[in-house]
Amino acid sequence: MTVYFDHAATTPIRKEVADEMYQVILNQFGNPSSSHQIGRKSKSILELSRKTIAEILNVLPSEIYFTSCGTEANNLILRSCVNDLGIKTIISSKIEHHAVLNTVESLAQNQNINVLYVNLLENGNVDLNHLEQLLIDNQNVLISLMHVNNEIGNVLNIQEVGNLSLKYNALFHSDMVQSLGSFPIDLSKINIDFATGSAHKFNGPKGVGLMFCKKKNKLKPMITGGSQERELRAGTENLYGIVGLAKAFELSNLELSSKINHNKTLKFYMIDKIQAELPEIKFNGDYQNGSYNILNLAFPNLNDSNQMLLFNFDLNGFCVSGGSACSSGSNKGSHVINTLQQHNGYIPIRFSFGKSNSIQDIDAVIEFIKSIVK
Amino acid sequence: MTVYFDHAATTPIRKEVADEMYQVILNQFGNPSSSHQIGRKSKSILELSRKTIAEILNVLPSEIYFTSCGTEANNLILRSCVNDLGIKTIISSKIEHHAVLNTVESLAQNQNINVLYVNLLENGNVDLNHLEQLLIDNQNVLISLMHVNNEIGNVLNIQEVGNLSLKYNALFHSDMVQSLGSFPIDLSKINIDFATGSAHKFNGPKGVGLMFCKKKNKLKPMITGGSQERELRAGTENLYGIVGLAKAFELSNLELSSKINHNKTLKFYMIDKIQAELPEIKFNGDYQNGSYNILNLAFPNLNDSNQMLLFNFDLNGFCVSGGSACSSGSNKGSHVINTLQQHNGYIPIRFSFGKSNSIQDIDAVIEFIKSIVK
Repeated sequence: MTVYFDHAATTPIRKEVADEMYQVILNQFGNPSSSHQIGRKSKSILELSRKTIAEILNVLPSEIYFTSCGTEANNLILRSCVNDLGIKTIISSKIEHHAVLNTVESLAQNQNINVLYVNLLENGNVDLNHLEQLLIDNQNVLISLMHVNNEIGNVLNIQEVGNLSLKYNALFHSDMVQSLGSFPIDLSKINIDFATGSAHKFNGPKGVGLMFCKKKNKLKPMITGGSQERELRAGTENLYGIVGLAKAFELSNLELSSKINHNKTLKFYMIDKIQAELPEIKFNGDYQNGSYNILNLAFPNLNDSNQMLLFNFDLNGFCVSGGSACSSGSNKGSHVINTLQQHNGYIPIRFSFGKSNSIQDIDAVIEFIKSIVK
Repeated sequence: MTVYFDHAATTPIRKEVADEMYQVILNQFGNPSSSHQIGRKSKSILELSRKTIAEILNVLPSEIYFTSCGTEANNLILRSCVNDLGIKTIISSKIEHHAVLNTVESLAQNQNINVLYVNLLENGNVDLNHLEQLLIDNQNVLISLMHVNNEIGNVLNIQEVGNLSLKYNALFHSDMVQSLGSFPIDLSKINIDFATGSAHKFNGPKGVGLMFCKKKNKLKPMITGGSQERELRAGTENLYGIVGLAKAFELSNLELSSKINHNKTLKFYMIDKIQAELPEIKFNGDYQNGSYNILNLAFPNLNDSNQMLLFNFDLNGFCVSGGSACSSGSNKGSHVINTLQQHNGYIPIRFSFGKSNSIQDIDAVIEFIKSIVK
């Protein structure tokens, strides 16, 4: 038996999405940039996908761009804001995904910009008073703060950060890779300049991401070449991936309330069980108010290394994660947990829930956890 | 009836490739960076794909990297050579694909490097004597010259350019998007540092490309974030695309001689017909020695605009191209043809052949051409 508790790392593709992609793979091979009929057919599929996404997010189709992944979209925004929009200061946090964190650090090193990290509360939430102070003290600012933290599930008050960015004339970018497709989001109701998403986080395909860029912001390409994506992203479009992204986004948004209810039930059932039966285990992040599908547990260190504990879960058929999948190659532990120091000396294990998970899965993993910590 | 003569723009995916991708889409959803069993399964598929490609090209698996397209791969190489390998001068040509041309120009503008364009012979071939002179006169050089020109089909003598790069201690990059999967290439036999390819040019999927980077060259990422692709390309891997790329590359290389024979027959049949029956039409590029699947015709200007002529072909069911698909959004005509001025005032129409084309297709298009030029 294998129980997959790692939906924040990636999700299985829905059958309906796979089938739609397969049909396009077999039947629509034209290059969307070709001016002949076979090319135009691909182009119309591409633009229909863009329209589907734009309508759900309540923005213009021309404000949606396709990329190869969320990471690329975050890079494009951050780099072009510095290179082309006159940004001199980036306000971010130490617990962003590496796609933002490493890019901001690279910009600080190579482009001589000022990077300021907003203070975090003990549970990992952004200190909005400190953010406001930083905005008062600096000019030509880009705020880059993620909507839902991929490791601990904390949710940013994007409405409030948007209001602050408006008040202090800053640009606002939010890495929404964990929230687009999983939260009801109307971008027209938030004062936000840039957002990013990734299909494989909401039961779509890997290898395709999206970027929202408000019309007034004239970014320039990071990948130069042909004039695809209205000259903002060169390279022949990943047509099947884009179709899969749009289909998965559509389905995910249609079923959002049942998705939220299902995962929320699992999460709070697990919290209750742990509080009742495993008091030695603590919770990382703002677990009560955080995202409905992420629960990050802090395990007492039983002379076990982080890797050994993870290995033990895996050996017993539970797929969980020690941090972000994207940095699992490194041995430094989680930069998020290391930054927070909420439960020093404890080992973090992230559970992230999805459609296939059941109450029985939670019962099973609770029994397994008892066997290792008791 | 539609006849697709635009295989240099993109090719249909083979059924075997589509089916293999579909199986992976349905059954292997793990994030290759996840350390648990579901992640490791994806990782092993990813590495098997890399090994397949490396074996065919006769290089190390660790010298192959996956990207989202050929354009991204070309950008990564050119930009990192300047940013990280001390390149001060790039020697390229005016008839490169825009993925190289625009990137080199962007580096010239923003990073203060020296760009030298090698002289071209009247038929578009690179003047190797001039290339040698440029290498004698400059230090810290990267040569970036494409293997097969996507518009006129001219083939670079990569063996000879490799020898020159060795002699004068330059790095050598070749955009092989039109040749990888279509020509027999053993990279171990050429003195080459970097090469790029794209799956959708050899009946594989769109949205995935590959890069060869010789082990000694330590590039740094253009897209920063997670530690995927041995820290050279952040972002969750396009697993299905990569599987499709490897499968298509394998099949294409297995059937290379029949592919070459089939297309060569069509190309020379068409050349013969035109020379015999349509003397008013000329040929762009080094058409006799150029790639077996590309034929670029020069049409007398019958008071027709370039766009109208293309439109006419399309209306009659012939999918052909005026230049590179990637720049079809622009109205400037072909930069390749404009550079060469081989047949001034003529309108270029590119035919590129593939599996589905037959002698009957050529007969049909010849009849159609007669109806418009006679």
